[in-house]
Amino acid sequence: MLNKNIETFLGFDAEYQESSFVVFGAPFDSTTSFRPGTRFASKVMRSESFGLETYSPYQDADLTDYRLFDGGDLELSFGNTERALEQIEQFTAKILDDQKIPCMIGGEHLVTLGAVRAAAKSYPDLHVIQFDAHTDLREDYLDQRLSHATVIRRVWDLLGDNRIYQYGIRSGDRPEFEWAAKQHVFMNKFNFDGLEDTVQELQGKPVYLTIDLDVLDPSVFPGTGTPEAGGVSFMDLLTAILTVSNLNIVACDVNELSPVYDQSGVSTAVACKVVRELTIALNKKL
Amino acid sequence: MLNKNIETFLGFDAEYQESSFVVFGAPFDSTTSFRPGTRFASKVMRSESFGLETYSPYQDADLTDYRLFDGGDLELSFGNTERALEQIEQFTAKILDDQKIPCMIGGEHLVTLGAVRAAAKSYPDLHVIQFDAHTDLREDYLDQRLSHATVIRRVWDLLGDNRIYQYGIRSGDRPEFEWAAKQHVFMNKFNFDGLEDTVQELQGKPVYLTIDLDVLDPSVFPGTGTPEAGGVSFMDLLTAILTVSNLNIVACDVNELSPVYDQSGVSTAVACKVVRELTIALNKKL
Amino acid sequence: MLNKNIETFLGFDAEYQESSFVVFGAPFDSTTSFRPGTRFASKVMRSESFGLETYSPYQDADLTDYRLFDGGDLELSFGNTERALEQIEQFTAKILDDQKIPCMIGGEHLVTLGAVRAAAKSYPDLHVIQFDAHTDLREDYLDQRLSHATVIRRVWDLLGDNRIYQYGIRSGDRPEFEWAAKQHVFMNKFNFDGLEDTVQELQGKPVYLTIDLDVLDPSVFPGTGTPEAGGVSFMDLLTAILTVSNLNIVACDVNELSPVYDQSGVSTAVACKVVRELTIALNKKL
Amino acid sequence: MLNKNIETFLGFDAEYQESSFVVFGAPFDSTTSFRPGTRFASKVMRSESFGLETYSPYQDADLTDYRLFDGGDLELSFGNTERALEQIEQFTAKILDDQKIPCMIGGEHLVTLGAVRAAAKSYPDLHVIQFDAHTDLREDYLDQRLSHATVIRRVWDLLGDNRIYQYGIRSGDRPEFEWAAKQHVFMNKFNFDGLEDTVQELQGKPVYLTIDLDVLDPSVFPGTGTPEAGGVSFMDLLTAILTVSNLNIVACDVNELSPVYDQSGVSTAVACKVVRELTIALNKKL
Amino acid sequence: MLNKNIETFLGFDAEYQESSFVVFGAPFDSTTSFRPGTRFASKVMRSESFGLETYSPYQDADLTDYRLFDGGDLELSFGNTERALEQIEQFTAKILDDQKIPCMIGGEHLVTLGAVRAAAKSYPDLHVIQFDAHTDLREDYLDQRLSHATVIRRVWDLLGDNRIYQYGIRSGDRPEFEWAAKQHVFMNKFNFDGLEDTVQELQGKPVYLTIDLDVLDPSVFPGTGTPEAGGVSFMDLLTAILTVSNLNIVACDVNELSPVYDQSGVSTAVACKVVRELTIALNKKL
Amino acid sequence: MLNKNIETFLGFDAEYQESSFVVFGAPFDSTTSFRPGTRFASKVMRSESFGLETYSPYQDADLTDYRLFDGGDLELSFGNTERALEQIEQFTAKILDDQKIPCMIGGEHLVTLGAVRAAAKSYPDLHVIQFDAHTDLREDYLDQRLSHATVIRRVWDLLGDNRIYQYGIRSGDRPEFEWAAKQHVFMNKFNFDGLEDTVQELQGKPVYLTIDLDVLDPSVFPGTGTPEAGGVSFMDLLTAILTVSNLNIVACDVNELSPVYDQSGVSTAVACKVVRELTIALNKKL
Repeated sequence: MLNKNIETFLGFDAEYQESSFVVFGAPFDSTTSFRPGTRFASKVMRSESFGLETYSPYQDADLTDYRLFDGGDLELSFGNTERALEQIEQFTAKILDDQKIPCMIGGEHLVTLGAVRAAAKSYPDLHVIQFDAHTDLREDYLDQRLSHATVIRRVWDLLGDNRIYQYGIRSGDRPEFEWAAKQHVFMNKFNFDGLEDTVQELQGKPVYLTIDLDVLDPSVFPGTGTPEAGGVSFMDLLTAILTVSNLNIVACDVNELSPVYDQSGVSTAVACKVVRELTIALNKKL
Repeated sequence: MLNKNIETFLGFDAEYQESSFVVFGAPFDSTTSFRPGTRFASKVMRSESFGLETYSPYQDADLTDYRLFDGGDLELSFGNTERALEQIEQFTAKILDDQKIPCMIGGEHLVTLGAVRAAAKSYPDLHVIQFDAHTDLREDYLDQRLSHATVIRRVWDLLGDNRIYQYGIRSGDRPEFEWAAKQHVFMNKFNFDGLEDTVQELQGKPVYLTIDLDVLDPSVFPGTGTPEAGGVSFMDLLTAILTVSNLNIVACDVNELSPVYDQSGVSTAVACKVVRELTIALNKKL
Repeated sequence: MLNKNIETFLGFDAEYQESSFVVFGAPFDSTTSFRPGTRFASKVMRSESFGLETYSPYQDADLTDYRLFDGGDLELSFGNTERALEQIEQFTAKILDDQKIPCMIGGEHLVTLGAVRAAAKSYPDLHVIQFDAHTDLREDYLDQRLSHATVIRRVWDLLGDNRIYQYGIRSGDRPEFEWAAKQHVFMNKFNFDGLEDTVQELQGKPVYLTIDLDVLDPSVFPGTGTPEAGGVSFMDLLTAILTVSNLNIVACDVNELSPVYDQSGVSTAVACKVVRELTIALNKKL
Repeated sequence: MLNKNIETFLGFDAEYQESSFVVFGAPFDSTTSFRPGTRFASKVMRSESFGLETYSPYQDADLTDYRLFDGGDLELSFGNTERALEQIEQFTAKILDDQKIPCMIGGEHLVTLGAVRAAAKSYPDLHVIQFDAHTDLREDYLDQRLSHATVIRRVWDLLGDNRIYQYGIRSGDRPEFEWAAKQHVFMNKFNFDGLEDTVQELQGKPVYLTIDLDVLDPSVFPGTGTPEAGGVSFMDLLTAILTVSNLNIVACDVNELSPVYDQSGVSTAVACKVVRELTIALNKKL
Repeated sequence: MLNKNIETFLGFDAEYQESSFVVFGAPFDSTTSFRPGTRFASKVMRSESFGLETYSPYQDADLTDYRLFDGGDLELSFGNTERALEQIEQFTAKILDDQKIPCMIGGEHLVTLGAVRAAAKSYPDLHVIQFDAHTDLREDYLDQRLSHATVIRRVWDLLGDNRIYQYGIRSGDRPEFEWAAKQHVFMNKFNFDGLEDTVQELQGKPVYLTIDLDVLDPSVFPGTGTPEAGGVSFMDLLTAILTVSNLNIVACDVNELSPVYDQSGVSTAVACKVVRELTIALNKKL
Repeated sequence: MLNKNIETFLGFDAEYQESSFVVFGAPFDSTTSFRPGTRFASKVMRSESFGLETYSPYQDADLTDYRLFDGGDLELSFGNTERALEQIEQFTAKILDDQKIPCMIGGEHLVTLGAVRAAAKSYPDLHVIQFDAHTDLREDYLDQRLSHATVIRRVWDLLGDNRIYQYGIRSGDRPEFEWAAKQHVFMNKFNFDGLEDTVQELQGKPVYLTIDLDVLDPSVFPGTGTPEAGGVSFMDLLTAILTVSNLNIVACDVNELSPVYDQSGVSTAVACKVVRELTIALNKKL
């Protein structure tokens, strides 16, 4: 009762040493050109996660069955993008070095680049599965090469062809779609059709899973910077997560919740439930 | 023009004596541990119901076809839960004694206990059908036995095994699901599958129908205290209501709208439409 | 850089003379009896459209492929309904006379009457396809003959029987449904079933397409004056738009976005995407 | 308990016959060109007034000391301004004929014209005191002669020179200020300086008091269509009301609350308190 | 970096043992009859306090100059008022026993009763200074004796006459004001006039300071359950705090922030600044 | 009517060549560490300025009396702070070279650095007057030297001692206040006392005026990233603006409006009025 006030994500009550799975926040949105606010996501999710239960009736399993650690939020350099990515890379590398699975809560999607850099060092054969409404494949955006709109292109710079699998894509400019069509990345538009095949293909490979929550329809997830109509339902996303959990996922992230645009709190509740289900799905396999 | 200002739910324009169906508000949310505000639901619904039409194209019938009475809101004792339940029980009993169907607008789900107590006295063979995202089957919650999270367990204390049918359930702690699995209650997870069978089974029995509106997906119904992703659509709920309206429903309630979290007003509009359709469905049978 | 600040809808960058398609705003909501605010729609859409891309992955085409003009907003007379309709009629007639397709952004649905008056003069054989939650077929409303709730009845006054096709209808008073059933208008309730047949039937005819965005489910489109549960999804609406784009659409409108009730901005984003897809679909045929 | 649900403004519990003071709502905002929503004011005020006490510590008197009646809201014709003004005039005239003081809750400021027309018939020597941020003295506005921006000019058309006293004015176009300076009306800018003199001057005359709540600083009263910085404090306004209550006020109104822009509810609370203090101040003199 | 995530109020970084001043949250609002939400105050204040600086230019001192501990939030029993008060009393007693000053963050004002019970046991000669808009002197409220509206009456039950000093009072029912006038409590209406005299009078006595933040004008502090126009400014309150800090304040609380009604966040920022200034003022004397 | 849609700030209708005063937006907030959103200010102000009149009753002058140009918004590089400052510097230099007064609308306060760099090149003897709640004098902030919290320190790097005059300051860390006290800058805490003396002192000097709108009390101006209680009133600020307008102001800016936190719109209305009054005050002298 008279210890310092500790605040962690629901069910993430283990110490670092004993844990196998580490959640942390990357509160950064400096390159967001349209509507900022994803910097608040991890803090708000920690607080609101207590509206959820620890038990998943979908998987008949409970967060309390596993040893989960919450490392809090990184203090990132606003306005200095490259420095912020280094901070993320360093923190992710530490977790990977300690043989744990990092699960980063964004922030804008650019934060993924920092974590993928770390994962690609640990796992040179890294593959990336991306659930997203947007391609994020631009070469540059508003004169910048490091941006939420270029992040997967930067990941491709790092990993090369045949390593990236995109699902749910429904927005981008024409050159992005054309570039993708040249088979630099595998892109499945609009939904999760074909995800089973990808899972077959990637058996045994190390996989980084990045979930941009705007893959969900804005009716389900209004609280995001760039809502894009025509997305998937929560049950679609849940099924997709359970499907890919059969792979060797070595690191993951969940990003683009912007609580500022989530007045009713439903998007935050969805984001928390995604983290719960993802955590349970990945820990069941360990 | 120069009478006192009367405000009733849309189409509820009859006097008490002549009516067969009585709506009233139970504005109580003192045990709500997460996000309060359901106390405002009945007042806001009365006011916003005038954005609806009285006519249902789904049932080709009109509220004006029936004699409907709006008893206004009870004045309940905030912070004294047992006393509030007594007030609800007493009011419900009066309506039942007068051979009318009470339709209570919550308030948090705990208010159901007061009304079920009255109904169980009038109808010892009472069965309960519950549409809800949450089991509400805890033995106690935050040290309390009377809570929105224990309400159906308290109903079970009263009615015993094989009397309660739950649909749409997708949240609870593990012991609740395990307890339910011991067949104390019939629980159908996630949706309304099997509802036709329940209707067959309960033919001729007196039924209390309790609708926790959070059974709806949060995209459809964001304005509630504990939004839980993965719910049913409005058309699913409407179909379910029409299905159970073939039973002998002796009392009902609609609860857990929290207008504070309904900035756009869509949840209130949905709640009003549910009350309209439920009212018409039940009155068509009379 | 040092020219006056120009603000147009995304991708509408042509001059009037060279354009074939003209968008303009009709910011009027004086007869809205329930929740006003549609007057702000066109202004907010112009500003928020830059959250969208110009490219449509659904149609593999781009706004930049066409010559599109944005005429800004009309300055309409608040509180003088007949005068406002004249202003709309006059502006629409000018565009039609110049052999361009007008695409009006409402405003409340009544603005459609002004544009239809102009179109019916240019095309005496005009037919109307209406996507809407509400019949809008009242003879009068709150003592007024010109109202958002009577607008399609006034269109019928102008065009007569067998000219109006309604889809998605799920609200109105009983006399409206009865009147429609007398085959003055073709009404398809709840969804777009049968739209293909209508398209067959209207081949070669001049068609005015009016999209009341509240045809969408309130989960998808909360930001409207009278949200009506049980509507269509975004993909349903997109498919319907692509279907009717095979007709000779001579004028169109998109109305009833009320940004005041769209705190998260998702409704505005949907409305912008509807305009983008509609624009591309109609211009592909030219 | 089993009577129809009655909803009146706090403390307005008398029957019409026995009352000396009658509040009623005029929910009209069709000519509002900028931000509508005052149509909701009277309804919301009725509901929220119960957050107030009936007792005024400022005047050491209580609403329950008087016989006060709430006539509810008029059903006005949206989009037909002249008709709406007639409805208001008629209702006000009825109250005046019955020797009671009408106190109208707007609505936009134009509603004042209807009530003043009635009062001027009963009291040909009528004078008007106006508390307001805006002059409202335009000859016409957006082509209309009947508008919230012209209402006091229309009152002047009716009453002529030396009948209107404005306080708190800090916005208008230059011609309005120049016209006022020609002494058609007495205008005191920015505050209530000189109000005591006006009260001396008008002793014994019948006075209509119109309070546009935007006379208050937007910090105190954000919930209005056209917030105008640099206004008076609540205590300033209260003092001014107590000062003018020494006159023979035969009718009054309080207008321009727009609950849509009052998310925190403080403006509604202020409006209710103004009505309470005004009611007590005027009834103490009877 | 890899310790559990700790979240404390800005500058409250000491361990319990070494600290002289202990802040903790009492998130309880079950008796709030009008607009709930104060349960969220302490959590939101902790998070938002980081928008403040630790340094006070008013007092030229810094939170980092002192040893301050944040004990987190109590887990209180919603819906069981007496139990919640016991929990508060027990926690406060522990801090007092350890010779530290407790500073409780409400919650509704009733939480004060728990803390005063503890303080009165430690200091039988306890006096109370209350800054508040409301008297809170009712004998009972909605049938309850334990309520936010009766809390100071219950304190009087405990302490008796001549022990309670109220400032800023501007709302209550008539019997409360009459009861106070019988000199059971000292009540100063509307502002802080006479506070210097009270400070003289109470020299050397143990004092409990309770600050209901609604003493502030709603323009300064909109985010509260019952906003009451005509309150004091922030600088008035700051001056009053500095004035009473010359007394022997043995315990204190700051209550009635309701973040739900503080969309802009300004009320939370004010509440945090009040806590900072109060903390510095009291610790400077130690 | 059929030209491209032009959108300028109210009354800024001249062409660039003929104008003497140029407003433009600098929508940048990438270094904002707490609550972002000032990027939207200029766009929203342009749109909402039409709720104002062009005429100032305070100065008896009208925006239409002058030749004013609105250059629109710069397209700045999000996430690349140095690049954004260069873009601002370049644009400001162009206006200064053309012998016009630039008036920049922020954005976060850091944008001032870009404009001051340009002004200091044109006017080596430049002095700066700053109205602000915050010192902005940090040497670095979150590891960055370019930040909203360091901007005036960077201006001092450029201009040196005795060139900067701060008014209204009430927040910063202790080292900032200590550094200022060494007379590097003149700092007046809390209000505008002594501003007349500064105006005497700076007669004939070129002055850059930077107004951080958070100098206003949060009650007046809630819509900002870091609201700081205890600020000045609108009338205080207006008086201060009129006072300094007697100087040779060669460039100016108005910044830190964050519309995201301005739900009621009052902050935007205040910001627009500040720009109107500042524009008139400066143009009267030309």
